[in-house]
Amino acid sequence: MLNKLRLLTPGPTPLPERVRLALARDMIHHRKKTFMDMMGQVQERLRVLFGTQDTVLPLSCSGTGAMTAAVHSLFQPGQRVLVVDGGKFGQRWRQIAEERGLQVTTLAVPWGQAVDVAAIAEALKAEPAGVLIQYSETSTGVLHPVQEVAALTRESQALLVVDGISAVGLVPCPMDDWGIDCLLTGSQKGLMLPPGLALLALSPRAWKVAETNDSGCFYFNLPAEKAKLAKGQTLFTSAVNLIAGLNESLDMLLENGLDAVYAKQWALTMLNRAGLTAMGLTLLAPQHFAWGITSVLLPTGIDGTEVLRIALDKHGVCMAGGQDQLKGKIVRLGHMGWVDWADSLAGLHALNKSIIEAGGYCASRDYLESAMAAYHAALQGRPGQPLPNTHS
Amino acid sequence: MLNKLRLLTPGPTPLPERVRLALARDMIHHRKKTFMDMMGQVQERLRVLFGTQDTVLPLSCSGTGAMTAAVHSLFQPGQRVLVVDGGKFGQRWRQIAEERGLQVTTLAVPWGQAVDVAAIAEALKAEPAGVLIQYSETSTGVLHPVQEVAALTRESQALLVVDGISAVGLVPCPMDDWGIDCLLTGSQKGLMLPPGLALLALSPRAWKVAETNDSGCFYFNLPAEKAKLAKGQTLFTSAVNLIAGLNESLDMLLENGLDAVYAKQWALTMLNRAGLTAMGLTLLAPQHFAWGITSVLLPTGIDGTEVLRIALDKHGVCMAGGQDQLKGKIVRLGHMGWVDWADSLAGLHALNKSIIEAGGYCASRDYLESAMAAYHAALQGRPGQPLPNTHS
Repeated sequence: MLNKLRLLTPGPTPLPERVRLALARDMIHHRKKTFMDMMGQVQERLRVLFGTQDTVLPLSCSGTGAMTAAVHSLFQPGQRVLVVDGGKFGQRWRQIAEERGLQVTTLAVPWGQAVDVAAIAEALKAEPAGVLIQYSETSTGVLHPVQEVAALTRESQALLVVDGISAVGLVPCPMDDWGIDCLLTGSQKGLMLPPGLALLALSPRAWKVAETNDSGCFYFNLPAEKAKLAKGQTLFTSAVNLIAGLNESLDMLLENGLDAVYAKQWALTMLNRAGLTAMGLTLLAPQHFAWGITSVLLPTGIDGTEVLRIALDKHGVCMAGGQDQLKGKIVRLGHMGWVDWADSLAGLHALNKSIIEAGGYCASRDYLESAMAAYHAALQGRPGQPLPNTHS
Repeated sequence: MLNKLRLLTPGPTPLPERVRLALARDMIHHRKKTFMDMMGQVQERLRVLFGTQDTVLPLSCSGTGAMTAAVHSLFQPGQRVLVVDGGKFGQRWRQIAEERGLQVTTLAVPWGQAVDVAAIAEALKAEPAGVLIQYSETSTGVLHPVQEVAALTRESQALLVVDGISAVGLVPCPMDDWGIDCLLTGSQKGLMLPPGLALLALSPRAWKVAETNDSGCFYFNLPAEKAKLAKGQTLFTSAVNLIAGLNESLDMLLENGLDAVYAKQWALTMLNRAGLTAMGLTLLAPQHFAWGITSVLLPTGIDGTEVLRIALDKHGVCMAGGQDQLKGKIVRLGHMGWVDWADSLAGLHALNKSIIEAGGYCASRDYLESAMAAYHAALQGRPGQPLPNTHS
């Protein structure tokens, strides 16, 4: 009662009321006109979001399901692929590819850093059939230089497969312009929906591969999904209420143009980074950072699990910790989806108080004002300016 | 405005208000205590519904996803399985098995009839690794004699894999008692939820197989899901709001005991069958019929698509037609999930008027009263009586 619960994890994210009311609508049939008309609207908007002329498929699965669908549809057992592994989700690409029977070359990147484009150029000489990468690596908050990687892969035969789960709707990723071959995302990040729906788009040359491939898994049949979507339907029973919610959230994302959304995400990122820096904390990703999640190292000797517990129990703020090798060592502050500046302020304050209560040191003056100053400066710097390119 | 929309298809089904309000709740995190506690409750209730002591896994996919997960988890390429094919979903078993690289023997059953148990006994002599069957074949409204089939398979090495998508929560299917090795369902039928969630349970001997098998598809890893569920979580991001809805719907299903739910479903089945018979129409499944869907043959020469259009446009009732070889020839009246006697009455009247308007003949006197008389008789016959066994 004293605190509202504030969900500041890097997914799932809070839900706008418009979306929640759409989720609560009574059921309609997935093979009838009302639904098919809605799918048509959704498709038109998804193409804007993905920056593609081609089809964006809704799949009834989590983001990992879409990653699995991509690997099964685009590659055959025995083929070689290059996996960029700079965190838990890079590892996931490797696991999915291995389960598919691919020969995997791993380009290991220290957690918190982005992949070196030159290393990819070098690895492409071995002519892999594909490059599997995250745009935003959710476990670290790093943004890999996908645009630069795409500039290389589009000149090679390697298909560039991009996990955009914590990127799409948060940071620009125009797949056709950049030459991405497969872009996928989940519903519970920038799209402000509950988990359970994934979206996936392919380039024309990726479609050519998918259309002749045997996916080896009946549930993931992208060409058959595409044929069905041309009729406003999905291959199997659609996740009807998530599609209804998606139509609302896409309407919200597009109503002021995507640039306004990206500008907000950039400003929220500046807010979080400035606030954490003002506390004297060290950011995990110094240079190549995501626009929907900020990871920060905790003072040495402080138990991260305890920090998260205090933040939730005493201040009502739910943040995420580190995964695997970073467990207990970092806090990940989500600022994606239905999160605004005041939510981020709450996150910074809760983190500050919780670190101190857990026995750590961090500066507790001026960090909120510094954060807000950075936010406003970032927003004001926007008009007429191109969006910042974090990779240059 | 003149008509309310009534969804009387064999899935998805209407949603109870309690479920819709749960679906509309704001997001919570899938790795935190509140969610894990909810998963604990859900699990306890699911075991009652499935009639099993073992784990019931929630999977983020449609029912077909769970069918795919079962085939990948329980069988290896090259193994032989027996598929009972008496409709569109029997065909689906075959397609999934073939995509997995299994050697499929098909036991073809005319659409509208149930499989002959003696034929299964004969086919088991060839020692297949599994038998894939529907309990309720949604495309025809037939109930296959799963209990009798299980009595055979439990004495053999063949695993019995049952698609219970339009059966679980509608007709008794106690998997441990009967000796079913894999029972699965989807969220959008007896469970009164939107589509997008599937549930799957294995017998101890099926778990042994799954634990040593390589599923060949990263997204479907049942042993890893089971290990995670022991901590109240799912392997990948959970479909949080569908789980919240499931907790509500299970509470509703169990509040008066499952027997009361099955008695209602039996009575609704009697209602629909009596009403359709009183109209002079022929039921597709004369003997072995489902408890959540009734299929009826249209008078010869009548366009089924037109009948459905009239029923929806003029009477507000959304019913389903036939699939594949039965397209245009039958109407499928759903009476599953959040559907009661008055909804079924509306369905019968809408069908009657629509057939006549489409130029067909059917009797239009006394059919509603006959339907209700059959409903009350079925309910009154209940106390102290065992549930009817449609297979004896």
